[in-house]
Amino acid sequence: MPEKIPALDGAAPALGDMEGAAFRKAGHEMVDWIAQYLDGVEGYPVLSRVRPGEIRDALPPSAPETGESFEEILADIERVIVPGITHWNHPGFFAYFAISGSGPGILAEFLCAAFNAQGMLWRTSPAVTELEEVALGWLRRLVRLPDTYEGVIYDTASIATLHALAAARQEAVPRVREHGLAGRPDIPTLRVYCSDHAHSSVDKAIIMLGLGLNSLERIEVDEQFRMRPDLLAEAISRDRLHGITPLAVVATVGTTAVTSVDPVAAIADICDREQLWLHVDAAYAGAAAMVPGFEATVDGCDRAASFVVNPHKWLFTPFDLSAFYCRRMDRVREAFSVTPSYLQTPNSEPVRNLMDTGVQLGRRFRALKLWMVLRHFGAEGMRRRLAEHIRLAALFASWVDASETFERLAPVPFSVVCFRACPPGLQGEEPTLDDLNRRLLDDVNATGDVFLSHTSLDGRFALRLAVGHIRTTERHVARAWELLEKRLAASWS
Amino acid sequence: MPEKIPALDGAAPALGDMEGAAFRKAGHEMVDWIAQYLDGVEGYPVLSRVRPGEIRDALPPSAPETGESFEEILADIERVIVPGITHWNHPGFFAYFAISGSGPGILAEFLCAAFNAQGMLWRTSPAVTELEEVALGWLRRLVRLPDTYEGVIYDTASIATLHALAAARQEAVPRVREHGLAGRPDIPTLRVYCSDHAHSSVDKAIIMLGLGLNSLERIEVDEQFRMRPDLLAEAISRDRLHGITPLAVVATVGTTAVTSVDPVAAIADICDREQLWLHVDAAYAGAAAMVPGFEATVDGCDRAASFVVNPHKWLFTPFDLSAFYCRRMDRVREAFSVTPSYLQTPNSEPVRNLMDTGVQLGRRFRALKLWMVLRHFGAEGMRRRLAEHIRLAALFASWVDASETFERLAPVPFSVVCFRACPPGLQGEEPTLDDLNRRLLDDVNATGDVFLSHTSLDGRFALRLAVGHIRTTERHVARAWELLEKRLAASWS
Repeated sequence: MPEKIPALDGAAPALGDMEGAAFRKAGHEMVDWIAQYLDGVEGYPVLSRVRPGEIRDALPPSAPETGESFEEILADIERVIVPGITHWNHPGFFAYFAISGSGPGILAEFLCAAFNAQGMLWRTSPAVTELEEVALGWLRRLVRLPDTYEGVIYDTASIATLHALAAARQEAVPRVREHGLAGRPDIPTLRVYCSDHAHSSVDKAIIMLGLGLNSLERIEVDEQFRMRPDLLAEAISRDRLHGITPLAVVATVGTTAVTSVDPVAAIADICDREQLWLHVDAAYAGAAAMVPGFEATVDGCDRAASFVVNPHKWLFTPFDLSAFYCRRMDRVREAFSVTPSYLQTPNSEPVRNLMDTGVQLGRRFRALKLWMVLRHFGAEGMRRRLAEHIRLAALFASWVDASETFERLAPVPFSVVCFRACPPGLQGEEPTLDDLNRRLLDDVNATGDVFLSHTSLDGRFALRLAVGHIRTTERHVARAWELLEKRLAASWS
Repeated sequence: MPEKIPALDGAAPALGDMEGAAFRKAGHEMVDWIAQYLDGVEGYPVLSRVRPGEIRDALPPSAPETGESFEEILADIERVIVPGITHWNHPGFFAYFAISGSGPGILAEFLCAAFNAQGMLWRTSPAVTELEEVALGWLRRLVRLPDTYEGVIYDTASIATLHALAAARQEAVPRVREHGLAGRPDIPTLRVYCSDHAHSSVDKAIIMLGLGLNSLERIEVDEQFRMRPDLLAEAISRDRLHGITPLAVVATVGTTAVTSVDPVAAIADICDREQLWLHVDAAYAGAAAMVPGFEATVDGCDRAASFVVNPHKWLFTPFDLSAFYCRRMDRVREAFSVTPSYLQTPNSEPVRNLMDTGVQLGRRFRALKLWMVLRHFGAEGMRRRLAEHIRLAALFASWVDASETFERLAPVPFSVVCFRACPPGLQGEEPTLDDLNRRLLDDVNATGDVFLSHTSLDGRFALRLAVGHIRTTERHVARAWELLEKRLAASWS
């Protein structure tokens, strides 16, 4: 063997990772820190109170030249970072979708980071590919989808919907992978349909795919915020008459604003007849299908071409993990499988390679957290928690309905309540009511005990309470109601 | 307050997360497990030895009905999962890019999962947005980019390059966000250029964007695998003559196969003249710019419109974290900013919202791990480790060069060596050499001590040794060389 090439500088500097003993010590400190944080999270205001720029300005503009101790870093986390956290772990977090992780999910992410396995190919860690298949199979059965759906884990539902519509495009547009859409007189204007209440990720997917926002037709909803299939059918016929080619329909099971459920079976009838790709965005409410009495949530979804549900939303799996199910995963592969020479593997390995199912080459070992969460709580434990959230939302809705100063603005199919203050004498005074509710929301959120968000329903400013956090109990929902009533009374008296 | 609505079943079941004490106990066990795993990782074969389907078949097809103990789960991780891991943590991992996490990065991911903060809006955790700005600022200075670049963290370089080309499309194609590309006689065929050796993520981005693979022109490389700017200029002129509109050029700093560096300054001259978007894929080698003597790695990159470098590749940050820098982030926002009513925030918050910079709405608190890694090791500690990897690769290359049975197939600008066995008497016997090297690779990888990958160079099967793992030392590189020599001698004697 040839002689050593000398190190770049003369010294023999310490290299390698942090020492095993130091890692152990820091790790145990981190466990204790996290445990006390989670146990004491109700002591923090839910919504962070820092001013814009405050965190940035508290930190130096350049990396330190020499390394710092774990104690210094942890001290800065407490001093600078924690005040800038909006505590999604707080049981008074009722905004957006009140997602939460859970103990087993947090430990799984810790282990995932330690393995640091990258699942682009089966061989780069067979466990990543195969545990993904197993965990997605478990989830598929829980949400009542047939075994004909192949699953893949993406980071977000935005990426899942993007791939669903890319697959639809691959199916509908001849040789789009090779020739694209530009400069092709043979390609007509294309159209995708969703409801007025579908998620903004549909818009973003449409933009990314080069279809253009104008190719997205938002169909009106009925009085319960569900897509009207009669209007969908009309829109498709009208488009065909005008030489526009319908491409796909996105139905939503659990819309973001009010968690309404589009009539998927009726929409599937139309898609069958028109031979359109049906993608179901069940990112939030798909989970509810496992709750006894809520099986109908996914009625008709077994006829969709693709379906997305987010375990990081209502299944206690730390962000991010989006489960994408597709009956035509071959279309995804047809669109995106690209194997350069440095990633070729022996033909003797009859395996799936995750890199073929999408635009992202690298894949984290996300399945680990879904698998550990489902094992820790069991199917029955998941069901009970979701049922409890549904019960708490119904309870809150009953208080709104019984109140003379508040009114409900939408049905409550799952665990989200849209409502507003509407004190006697102000009925019909829309600008005043909007203003009143906006101020009430800020006022209640400023207490630090709860964090609610808002939406706009038929032009009215609506308050929105979403239950879904694993630590939320009746006490927290009652506290939200108490604050709303008291603050309204204080400002309205 | 109205009366309670009774729970769905009569009993009072245990709800909530795992108990604080149980989390603490399991957390401490996990720390010890991970610490002994990392300390003992050399005891595992690098490349997993399981058969396809073995892990899937070892696990039940449905989730357990009732919850299981942490001990049962951890036992299955040891029994079923660990044998299915290809150990990216093993210091004998020399395949692909030998990425690794590090102690501080692992602890940061643990904390990230615990916070479970979702940074779509500034207010949903100001620390996510602002620490991202700080950590990306630190990294930007380390890799010698000017402050005029705004940064955003994505999951992978595939997604970064996708957004770079989407921004280029937004800039070049009038009203593409609204009108898309299809059915528009005003839009000509568009063209993107990269080298023969550019990453497959460029192909995937082109497909996703609706441009079609035919719109990607791969420019030939010189004898050192660098894009030839003369041929780029020719291709652009030829395209313009034929009515094709050039859109963007992707230059690579550290190609995947051989880590060659395209002449970015010369390419930037062409892009300036032709007014084309220049995106630099420095996913791997961008990190090297911080090493004394390697400043020239990023020559010309300060003239690019966008630039991506992956801390999860060569900066000891657990997968995934890709840093995207852009001088025209307004184009990304122009393309992808979509704000539904339920995500509107007060105008009084003069802040960036991460959801506006891309297709993914939800954002993990990824900045935490980059920040903690940079603080733990310090700039100087990062530099020393990269320099050592470069030294180890040069050392290995010197052994190849001095050998009579091996030959080097490409220059070694950083920490990757492409080479092959070429025993005396077999020179020029290409099919035999390919076969010999393929078998040698399998043979060496089967020892479990090392894992090398391969590529194809000028049609020849090349072995590829990538140094980049934080725990790799001279001993491991020497072991790889020893195995290669011995196994070749055994099969060739």
